[in-house]
Amino acid sequence: MKTLSQIGEQKLIHEISKILRSKDPSVLRGIGDDAAVLKFDHKKLLLSTDALLESVHFDGQGVDLYLLGRKSLAVNLSDLAAMGGTPRWALVSIALPSRESLKKVLEFHRGLKSMADEFGVSIVGGDTDRSHSGWKITIALAGEADRPVLRSGARRGDRIWVTGYLGSSALGWELLKKGGRRQELGVRSRNAEFIRAHLNPCPRVKEGKLLSQKRLATSLIDVSDGLISDLTHLCEASGVGGRILLKQIPMSKGFFELCRKVGKDPYVLALGGGEDYELLFTASAAKGDQIRRAFRKLKTPVTCIGEVVGRKEGIRVLDERGRLARIVKKGYQHF
Amino acid sequence: MKTLSQIGEQKLIHEISKILRSKDPSVLRGIGDDAAVLKFDHKKLLLSTDALLESVHFDGQGVDLYLLGRKSLAVNLSDLAAMGGTPRWALVSIALPSRESLKKVLEFHRGLKSMADEFGVSIVGGDTDRSHSGWKITIALAGEADRPVLRSGARRGDRIWVTGYLGSSALGWELLKKGGRRQELGVRSRNAEFIRAHLNPCPRVKEGKLLSQKRLATSLIDVSDGLISDLTHLCEASGVGGRILLKQIPMSKGFFELCRKVGKDPYVLALGGGEDYELLFTASAAKGDQIRRAFRKLKTPVTCIGEVVGRKEGIRVLDERGRLARIVKKGYQHF
Repeated sequence: MKTLSQIGEQKLIHEISKILRSKDPSVLRGIGDDAAVLKFDHKKLLLSTDALLESVHFDGQGVDLYLLGRKSLAVNLSDLAAMGGTPRWALVSIALPSRESLKKVLEFHRGLKSMADEFGVSIVGGDTDRSHSGWKITIALAGEADRPVLRSGARRGDRIWVTGYLGSSALGWELLKKGGRRQELGVRSRNAEFIRAHLNPCPRVKEGKLLSQKRLATSLIDVSDGLISDLTHLCEASGVGGRILLKQIPMSKGFFELCRKVGKDPYVLALGGGEDYELLFTASAAKGDQIRRAFRKLKTPVTCIGEVVGRKEGIRVLDERGRLARIVKKGYQHF
Repeated sequence: MKTLSQIGEQKLIHEISKILRSKDPSVLRGIGDDAAVLKFDHKKLLLSTDALLESVHFDGQGVDLYLLGRKSLAVNLSDLAAMGGTPRWALVSIALPSRESLKKVLEFHRGLKSMADEFGVSIVGGDTDRSHSGWKITIALAGEADRPVLRSGARRGDRIWVTGYLGSSALGWELLKKGGRRQELGVRSRNAEFIRAHLNPCPRVKEGKLLSQKRLATSLIDVSDGLISDLTHLCEASGVGGRILLKQIPMSKGFFELCRKVGKDPYVLALGGGEDYELLFTASAAKGDQIRRAFRKLKTPVTCIGEVVGRKEGIRVLDERGRLARIVKKGYQHF
């Protein structure tokens, strides 16, 4: 009798999906994308859910509850951003230890509300429960999209793009572990940008909407597990392969130097670090200029990092001389 | 600095609600009912969420995972039933110990799917996580209703009604603790009905829809915490009081005798036991015959158990001579 740790997360999800498969015609896209797409009246409803568990996703000791509230919603907003959707309403289900202080719980909810307000989301319900083992936060988010962008639309020859910089959140986490303090968030320290990327990520909702509304992207996903891992998900859904150029991977100023300081390989963090909540998308080669112009207006960095290739090639990362770089680490895996 | 156990669940929810309050005109009903009611295009979208946690809501030892899957969805379906809504799509977020067997996890999902199919619900997404402390199942459910029935519509002089029988689930739980076995579910044992009520409850979706579509009810809630507790929620939302006649409380055949056998006061179980997932509603006095006729067609028992009174009277239970019965126990309280 196999255990979950033996079979791994992907196989588990595959087996579950087989059982839950539905023929409901209102389900335009079910399990297997960042959000479900549902036909509701004349519109398309998006639904997604994501959980943050203490001692799995975050360390309860000394955590800033306000920022945790913000991040809990941000990771869900990122799922709708990854469909090109507009988030509307959230449900927050939370399990808490009985000994937790009211003050801390309310601080969490103030953070949650601040993130909700920034993105025009209303928190319309939820559930509170007692927990015997730390905080558990599960958020379900509903939104809409006229033209949702799926994971499955990438075609051979399309270019692969990513917003922002990669590895910043993973570096922030390393800095925090090495004694960096969240107090640095407000100050002009070199660490601040990376700690902020980890503790207070900004979901790319307006960027996702832009891609959807201007029909710029053929496929779209957010980088939550790590670039290689999420590119793999996107390519599998599209039935294609992906070729990435190592030297094109966008990394923030000072990233290399700080990585050296904390003793981490910058490429390990940038390719496999996870929790970047940037958007990874594909677009036809002809759209390059239009994409650059549109993102310049948004003041969001965007970088072409590679090309969609045939399925058989799989996922490859090439170095400056076109040689196959060793993929150092796969993204985060539960179980 | 007060802890959650010191302030209790109701006060916690009150404080959280103050922070999360929204002025979004699309939110027709937010926090404070069984589901949120949202204006989406020309329709009304319902959203609700409910969690089941191991060692809080159920005992992991020897639990039948198939039935747990069914019940996890049933408690959520009951929330939409309590709005008179039609459930449509569910998201299932589940955290599991790494050492759990795949077989058991799939058994759970088979149960979930069977309940979903019975009520025409599609499971369209979710999230799987590692848990360091037992199963955690959080379901979010979306549905619709043309004319949702809120908790807040009860008016003085209305009659108070309840579907089915009360206390059966609580008695089932007592029987299981005393060595009753879930194997009795299939057989014609006297225990079977009560064990089934606890392990395999049937949400009153069609009854809720009937009340909404025929405009029979002025207010509606499901009995999840216990009759007195849920009647209190309904009356508080409506700004009224409620008077219940003890002799009218519907209890199943054999209930009294089995309660005596397990050493429990039948009224404690029927008034405070919880997890009945019956519907509690109010209706104008003139609708009595119409309600009885409509429920006869559905073959669902329905009983008038009291009357809506002024707010100042609070919640009272009267015995056969019209004397105030001592309310023995409030419903289930987290924290």
